[in-house]
Amino acid sequence: RINGDRLWDSLMEMAKIGPGVAGGNNRQTLTDEDGEGRALFQSWCEAAGCTMGLDQMGNMFAERAGTDPDALPVYVGSHLDTQPTGGKYDGVLGVLGGLEIIRTLNDLDVKTKHPIVVTNFTNEEGTRYAPAMLSSGVFAGIHTQDWAYDREDADGKKFGDELTRIGWRGDEDVGARKMHAFFELHIEQGPILEAEGKDIGVVTHGQGLSWTQVTITGKDSHTGSTPMPMRKNAGLGMARVLEKVDEIAWSHAPHAVGAAGHIDVYPNSRNVIPGKVVFTVDFRSPELSVIEDMEARLRVEGQKIADDMGLEIAFEKVGGFDPVAFDEGCVGAVRTAAERLGYSHMNLISGAGHDACWINRVAPTAMVMCPCVDGLSHNEAEEISKDWAMAGTDVLMHAVVETAEI
Amino acid sequence: RINGDRLWDSLMEMAKIGPGVAGGNNRQTLTDEDGEGRALFQSWCEAAGCTMGLDQMGNMFAERAGTDPDALPVYVGSHLDTQPTGGKYDGVLGVLGGLEIIRTLNDLDVKTKHPIVVTNFTNEEGTRYAPAMLSSGVFAGIHTQDWAYDREDADGKKFGDELTRIGWRGDEDVGARKMHAFFELHIEQGPILEAEGKDIGVVTHGQGLSWTQVTITGKDSHTGSTPMPMRKNAGLGMARVLEKVDEIAWSHAPHAVGAAGHIDVYPNSRNVIPGKVVFTVDFRSPELSVIEDMEARLRVEGQKIADDMGLEIAFEKVGGFDPVAFDEGCVGAVRTAAERLGYSHMNLISGAGHDACWINRVAPTAMVMCPCVDGLSHNEAEEISKDWAMAGTDVLMHAVVETAEI
Ligand SMILES: NC(=O)NCCC(=O)O
Ligand SMILES: NC(=O)NCCC(=O)O
Repeated sequence: RINGDRLWDSLMEMAKIGPGVAGGNNRQTLTDEDGEGRALFQSWCEAAGCTMGLDQMGNMFAERAGTDPDALPVYVGSHLDTQPTGGKYDGVLGVLGGLEIIRTLNDLDVKTKHPIVVTNFTNEEGTRYAPAMLSSGVFAGIHTQDWAYDREDADGKKFGDELTRIGWRGDEDVGARKMHAFFELHIEQGPILEAEGKDIGVVTHGQGLSWTQVTITGKDSHTGSTPMPMRKNAGLGMARVLEKVDEIAWSHAPHAVGAAGHIDVYPNSRNVIPGKVVFTVDFRSPELSVIEDMEARLRVEGQKIADDMGLEIAFEKVGGFDPVAFDEGCVGAVRTAAERLGYSHMNLISGAGHDACWINRVAPTAMVMCPCVDGLSHNEAEEISKDWAMAGTDVLMHAVVETAEI
Repeated sequence: RINGDRLWDSLMEMAKIGPGVAGGNNRQTLTDEDGEGRALFQSWCEAAGCTMGLDQMGNMFAERAGTDPDALPVYVGSHLDTQPTGGKYDGVLGVLGGLEIIRTLNDLDVKTKHPIVVTNFTNEEGTRYAPAMLSSGVFAGIHTQDWAYDREDADGKKFGDELTRIGWRGDEDVGARKMHAFFELHIEQGPILEAEGKDIGVVTHGQGLSWTQVTITGKDSHTGSTPMPMRKNAGLGMARVLEKVDEIAWSHAPHAVGAAGHIDVYPNSRNVIPGKVVFTVDFRSPELSVIEDMEARLRVEGQKIADDMGLEIAFEKVGGFDPVAFDEGCVGAVRTAAERLGYSHMNLISGAGHDACWINRVAPTAMVMCPCVDGLSHNEAEEISKDWAMAGTDVLMHAVVETAEI
């Protein structure tokens, strides 16, 4: 069993970096705070006897040697970056849970045949730079590195420049590493495990995602002196599209969800009718055909709304991945570990995207989930219990050690 | 007649300060650019032999002496601040048109009994600091100076501090000046004069305005893993309220308008369901009862929408003024001037708010309007012809000189 107090202390220590405004964290990717969090993680890994690798996307790889020089490593990990108003556990538990495994194996003096590597993937959240899971995506060959470097944040700062600026751009070729397997521990970020009273989610699948950035262009003009019939109100056009997004998602519920989290209005002045709005529609489903249907309907219905109102509308896909089926062998290792340790468990479909979803394309992969209070995540009030964190990390360790072979 | 080329050159010279991104201006109130524009205006006024007064709200008063030491001055003017994506004429024409009157009277060596004072009122636009017409409002005793100083911009910077920072906080008590009359020349910012082929709008009334800031609070949570029935999507609540705003305004059209120009979404991340939105609803009508009805319906309908969706909603009135009837004598002077000069003219109700609307409370006031292309304003593409500017300034001069007496 892992050391729950030590794990918890490390979680709380990391949460001091980039504190939020309401008890959570704002440690967005490639900020100074991200750099600080990385340095702390590196110092802990080195203290645990690991050697740190760093690739050209800033992905970090802390390796504990195995006994067989020819054996490919078993990877664990997740991400240390957070949402702008994020929680203390989303991603962080998966990275520090990986570190806790190393520390426990060190304590117990257990050696594994395969090396074990704890990974921190860069920019999983996708808030500052779309898409989410950018660097595991480059690792898995989904995106090119040049394209990733060119992503811009809201201030026009490029991913590549910011990675260099914070000093975490490494030399390693991205994706050059071969993995024996990959395991990611993550909080559920949804309500199912808590509602069902289960300690462990054995993640068999991940639902797919589509991010469509919608730009509606009207004409900015005076809110007072522009008569109603002459208005080209891009904000009102957006309101109508948002209503449709909700309607489309509900038409497939419970097998789909949809919303817009990102909305920018221009010029955003109280007495100027919005001339332009840019917003991102997030549609998800475990079924690819449902995602495709929702995307297509958004474009058709959005175009209709714009045409009716004399507005221009443009759609750009800025992120997405297909539904994922995780590796049966790895999933089995997770389930067996939960059983062996006596934790209650159930199969889950991940509602969120994870680095594991991309890594699954290049290595046998599975995920372990633990509950979170009220299913709440992407909120500073995100909370888990120490017991849940311990159970998840115990299961992770047993699945990893079984796969890495003693 | 005024010197149209000189007026136009001054307009173009001022437009070089705080250029926009599309041919217009971004010279928002109390920015460094505002300070630069003020300094240029002051240098021109001093070159024209005026003495400059500055009050504690940063309102500027350039005085050309009269022949009777006991006669109260006739004031003209408007504002030099702009929208973030504003035009070159909104406000600026009224200030530099006032200066052009002084220059012309100097050229012709005409003396008036009453002094003439050209005014630049601080923060007319109300984008950076709500409400609009803040400093003419303090002048007219509508707001207290302390309250005005405490207004905050989006970055939390206070009006009073920023006024001091740019070096344009004067000593004069605000509102201490007594006015014989006030005249404001302004572009129409609407389509009527151009459509009717008239050179001059004789502004008899101004429509009233109500700004209600609406805050909807839901719960930020994950866009992927939060099931549809568990969502408290403040962004969707806003969409429904925006649809109602449009419906309410149309129910009174053509005697009302309504829209939201300002919308902020929190935390504004693609994969976070908006937990909070703040937006400002702008309702206007020439009839007070219509404004009151729209305000009341917004609160009732907004509350219903929020209740249905499990959201919280709060309403705060952040700006407003009642419909205005301008002084019959001053309005008559404008109409007479247009007739005498042979310009086609018609009566107008101003769709926008103006400093004149507040000054009308403390002095006999009227406005002169000239057309603008396509009725477009609060847009960098705002445009007028030199002929329109000349006609408006000619009429302004004749109305002012008649009132100031030769
Ligand atoms: N786990 C997580 O929140 N990842 C961010 C990508 C997503 O929105 O699903
Ligand atoms: N003239 C003008 O645009 N003033 C700003 C106040 C308003 O929104 O009417």
